[in-house]
Amino acid sequence: MRGLGNRTVQYQHNVAASLGLYNNDFISVDILRDKGPITAGELSKLTGLATGSVTTLIDRLEKIGYVRRQNDPNDRRKVIIVPEYEHKEEIIQTYQPLHDAMIRLASTYTADELELIMQFLGKACTVLDEQIQELSSTARKKS
Amino acid sequence: MRGLGNRTVQYQHNVAASLGLYNNDFISVDILRDKGPITAGELSKLTGLATGSVTTLIDRLEKIGYVRRQNDPNDRRKVIIVPEYEHKEEIIQTYQPLHDAMIRLASTYTADELELIMQFLGKACTVLDEQIQELSSTARKKS
Repeated sequence: MRGLGNRTVQYQHNVAASLGLYNNDFISVDILRDKGPITAGELSKLTGLATGSVTTLIDRLEKIGYVRRQNDPNDRRKVIIVPEYEHKEEIIQTYQPLHDAMIRLASTYTADELELIMQFLGKACTVLDEQIQELSSTARKKS
Repeated sequence: MRGLGNRTVQYQHNVAASLGLYNNDFISVDILRDKGPITAGELSKLTGLATGSVTTLIDRLEKIGYVRRQNDPNDRRKVIIVPEYEHKEEIIQTYQPLHDAMIRLASTYTADELELIMQFLGKACTVLDEQIQELSSTARKKS
C-alpha cells in the first residue's frame, strides 16, 4: 500500500508537470473532480493549504478555465468552486495511457477476483477518508 | 483506483501539513523512503521539480535532519541523498493510526484473498512506475 501510495503521488506530480501546472493546483483539480463543487474553505481543509493560498490557487485555475466560481444554488451566501476541465482535451489525453494500462491489468482477473479487489480498494478509501479527517481536525486544533 | 489515488494525495498533503513541511518536501521524503538513497538529479526526475528547486528542497530537509548528503560509495563523483528520518518520533506517530487501520482492514480477509489483493497492488505499482517513466521522459523531450 505504501509503495502504491508513493507512486500515486509521484504519478500526479508528473501529470501536473506535463500539464504545466503547479502541484497544489493540480491536486486541487483532482480533489474537485472527486468531490464535485465545494467551497474554498472545504478545499482548504482537504488540501491542508492556508485559505489565502487557496484563494490565489483558485484565481490561477479560473484564469486557465479549469474551474469557475459560482453562488451555491442551495445557499446564496456561499460561493462554490465548480470543476470545468473534465472534458478538456489535454486532461483526457494525459490520463489515457494510465486508463488503458489499468483496463489491461483488470482484464487479467476474473469477475469474482475483481469484485474482491474493488471491495478492498473501496474500504481502503474509507480508511484514508477517516485518516484525512483525523489529521485535518488535529491540524485545526493546533492552529 | 482514481478515488484511492485522490485520497492518497490528500492524505499525504495532510501529513505534510501536520508535520509543518512543504508538500514538495514531504513528497521527496516519501520518495526517498521508497527508493533509498538517490542523487538530486534522480529526485528531480521523480518529483517533476526543476533541479534548482530540488537543491533548495534538499537544503531545507538537511537543516531539519531529515536527509543527509553523502558521496556515493560506488562513484565518488556523485553525491547521493540519504534519508535519515525513518526513526524520527514525529514521523512514526503521524503514520501510526493509518498503519493500525490498514492492519485492521487486512485482518478481515483470508490469507488467499490478501495474496490476490497484494499481487494486484504490486502489479498496479508496476503500471504506475511505467506511466511515471513515460510522463517524465515526455516532459524532458518537451523542455
